[in-house]
Amino acid sequence: MNDCIFCKIVKGEIPCHKIYEDDNFLAFLDINPVSLGHTLLIPKNHFRWVYDIPNSNELWQVAQKIAIALKESKLNPDFVSFLTMGNEVPHAHIHIIPRSLNDAIKPILQSIPHVKPTEEQFLEITNQIKNSIK
Amino acid sequence: MNDCIFCKIVKGEIPCHKIYEDDNFLAFLDINPVSLGHTLLIPKNHFRWVYDIPNSNELWQVAQKIAIALKESKLNPDFVSFLTMGNEVPHAHIHIIPRSLNDAIKPILQSIPHVKPTEEQFLEITNQIKNSIK
Repeated sequence: MNDCIFCKIVKGEIPCHKIYEDDNFLAFLDINPVSLGHTLLIPKNHFRWVYDIPNSNELWQVAQKIAIALKESKLNPDFVSFLTMGNEVPHAHIHIIPRSLNDAIKPILQSIPHVKPTEEQFLEITNQIKNSIK
Repeated sequence: MNDCIFCKIVKGEIPCHKIYEDDNFLAFLDINPVSLGHTLLIPKNHFRWVYDIPNSNELWQVAQKIAIALKESKLNPDFVSFLTMGNEVPHAHIHIIPRSLNDAIKPILQSIPHVKPTEEQFLEITNQIKNSIK
C-alpha cells in the first residue's frame, strides 16, 4: 500500500535498523521502543492483521528465532514478550519485546480494566467461540 | 509440574471453560478477562516460555485458528490481539484477546514508559541482536 509506513520501510523508502530479513519477512528495531531491543517483525506483503497472513506459522517461527536471539544477546533480558496490536499501524506486525521480570510493563498491563462475566456468560461465550472454530 | 495451576487445568484438577483441545494444546477462557472472550492457549506439557516450545509453530497455528473463531463469533470484535507475558503464571501461554478499536487497552499500552536510545545505541543493539540470530 502506497501510504503504509511499513510498506515504505520494506521498499527502502524509509530507513530502519534491520535485524533480520528473508524473502517474506522483515524485522527491525521499533523507533519508539518500550525497552532496548524492542523489535517489530512484519510480512513484506501488506496484510491488515497477523491472522490474515496465510503462512503465519512461518512468521511465528521467525518471531521465535528473534526472541531466542534477543534472549541470548548482550541485552540479556529476563524474558521476551510477543504482542500484536494493529490499531496503530495498519500493516500486520509482531512486537517482540525484551523484558525484565520487574519492569514497568507488568503493573500497567494489570491495570487494564477487566470485565466480570457471570458464570452464565462464561458458558454462553464458551459455546459461541466453540461454534465458530473451523 | 505439581504446583502449576495450568498443569492442574490440563489434568482436570481445576475446572475451566474449554474452548479448544487437541493432543498438544488446550485453550480456555481467562478467569479474569480484559474483554469478553479473552482466551488462554497453552501447551499441555509444561514449558516456561512460549519460545521454549519445540513445536511452537503448531501452537501459533492453533492461536490463529482461535483468533479467527473469535473474530467470526457473535462477540464480533474489531480485531484480536495476541500477547505473551509469562511472569504471572510460569507455564507458557498466549493471551488471545478480542479487541475494539477504541477500547481502554490501547491508551494504557501507549502509556508504558518508553526508552530513548541514541542513534549510536540503536546501531549497537542492531549488531548485538544480529550477531545472536542463529
